[in-house]
Amino acid sequence: MTKLRSPYLLFLGDIGDIGYVKTACGLRDWAPERCAGQLRLSGGVDLGLPDKTPAEAAAAGAGTLVIGTATDGGRMPYAWHAVLLQAIDAGMDVASGLHQRLNAVPELVAAANRRGVRLIDVREPPADIPVGTGVKRSGRRLLTVGTDCAIGKKYAALAITKALRAAGYKATFRATGQTGILLAGSGMPIDAVVSDFVAGAAEMLSPDNEPDHWDVIEGQGALAHPSYAGVTTGLVHGSQPDAMVLCHEPDRREIEGRPGFPTPSIEEAMGDYLRVARVTNRNARFAAVSLNTGRLAEPDALATIQATADATGLPCFDPLRTSLTGLVERLSAWP
Amino acid sequence: MTKLRSPYLLFLGDIGDIGYVKTACGLRDWAPERCAGQLRLSGGVDLGLPDKTPAEAAAAGAGTLVIGTATDGGRMPYAWHAVLLQAIDAGMDVASGLHQRLNAVPELVAAANRRGVRLIDVREPPADIPVGTGVKRSGRRLLTVGTDCAIGKKYAALAITKALRAAGYKATFRATGQTGILLAGSGMPIDAVVSDFVAGAAEMLSPDNEPDHWDVIEGQGALAHPSYAGVTTGLVHGSQPDAMVLCHEPDRREIEGRPGFPTPSIEEAMGDYLRVARVTNRNARFAAVSLNTGRLAEPDALATIQATADATGLPCFDPLRTSLTGLVERLSAWP
Repeated sequence: MTKLRSPYLLFLGDIGDIGYVKTACGLRDWAPERCAGQLRLSGGVDLGLPDKTPAEAAAAGAGTLVIGTATDGGRMPYAWHAVLLQAIDAGMDVASGLHQRLNAVPELVAAANRRGVRLIDVREPPADIPVGTGVKRSGRRLLTVGTDCAIGKKYAALAITKALRAAGYKATFRATGQTGILLAGSGMPIDAVVSDFVAGAAEMLSPDNEPDHWDVIEGQGALAHPSYAGVTTGLVHGSQPDAMVLCHEPDRREIEGRPGFPTPSIEEAMGDYLRVARVTNRNARFAAVSLNTGRLAEPDALATIQATADATGLPCFDPLRTSLTGLVERLSAWP
Repeated sequence: MTKLRSPYLLFLGDIGDIGYVKTACGLRDWAPERCAGQLRLSGGVDLGLPDKTPAEAAAAGAGTLVIGTATDGGRMPYAWHAVLLQAIDAGMDVASGLHQRLNAVPELVAAANRRGVRLIDVREPPADIPVGTGVKRSGRRLLTVGTDCAIGKKYAALAITKALRAAGYKATFRATGQTGILLAGSGMPIDAVVSDFVAGAAEMLSPDNEPDHWDVIEGQGALAHPSYAGVTTGLVHGSQPDAMVLCHEPDRREIEGRPGFPTPSIEEAMGDYLRVARVTNRNARFAAVSLNTGRLAEPDALATIQATADATGLPCFDPLRTSLTGLVERLSAWP
């Protein structure tokens, strides 16, 4: 993938729900040194970064306007073009992880060519992805999976990679979504891959490696999600995870944006993921539970984490709140 | 989809395994009046149609060379271009359901333009497919599902549609693969859809309908298949089937082309499909089992069909061998 010019101006559009600007949140939380400011339209959420116009950001040295939204279907309202044109006119590159490609919008392409800046579509999968083979690869793989979308799978994978490395283990974060790819600088935009090739794309993302190396693969979607479970299934099959970490939010009762669709319990979800994972790796097991306790006060969060550990017999953590020592110990002794 | 000029010359390439020329087999079996002949390269299987060169076929009135192969990944060897160019030079259209697009091969496009014939890619999905919503639609839906790929899901769906109509019920065959689309003249090439939109594509394929109308949806892939289960999962979710028919081949022990991957038993497969289907339709149930008994002698086939009916308590049939009366009766009294 083309290397992005930092720092970034994060464009939030008019999105009022923080769940739908997760790309911007991820960059703010995991690469704050690369985030120069935010640009909101009327109604847009506040991420606590300095508000800047494209001209102000460019004057302060920003190299790229990054579209920070992640809406259903990844489309871009026509009204946003004006803002992107302002950024281009100010001399900034524009980067997007939306399904809708910047490079497919003639007026943006023309403006970028005129101004000599780049339009970078990080959700463009590589050409010639093979179909999955199911053949076992060397090295170890951990996949984060979830009871819903936007529940902490990327954060968990980033935190696990960091914790493994800090403890002296070999580990690589493998990005599968737009934010992860923007953070890591490479990866596989798995939900933009043609469906017949999803398992093959996941195989390609985590190739053969040293026997004691962990690929920590960012999960996508959820098996219980009525829209995206196909992506999840292909990713699980192609990843052939030895270990999975289930990401869950204690008080989320329904799939986000899909009223009437219940989130599964931790136990149900684990059963479903194990059944799917064992198609390509009969030794797949759960290694931990990652809880998103952002909506709970500290004492409640810690009590919930402890209760979940007791109920499942697995290490349990919140990657933004607690240590991952239990998981790292467990992985260090993985059979 | 563009209407094809019949009759067709079925191109079989050098494929020696009949399982990988299923597009040609489907056309021969379900639209024999449209099949003028076959064209085999060295090593290609014989479908029992008259062998013809493109020039001979064109002279006899053939309007379209149809690529009849369905290989893993849907790619086209470069060596086949020469044959396609001969067909174009003879004045025939060329139609393909491969992932690799005819219209993306400059030498074919140039030749077709020069000769004034058409290159028809039936596996090109429509633009702007929405993401799945999971919202219930009116009308009834039956989906054929399988214990493997290439096991009889399309044949079963075609036979069920025919049997329902013959009994006076309203029913529409909904094609999801290249052969089905070539036969029906419309449909959704589900495995060519970007993975994030597979469930949405399936929702689009079988829209709201009259309460007593059955959409009979052609299944794709298999939940137990290490390469294609993502496609299957999205199709099951978006189809929201009220009824499913499990397609199975009694003596197939391994997934075709994936040694070491066992096919599930009928019971295991039903459990897996019901778990997935109930994410979007809590009332999903199995209506029948469709057996592919092509490799068995008639008495063995009939005994196996009876034994399967006894074991499952469901109507059981082979769409190429026995009547579907039991299933039609069951559907006529569907709750």
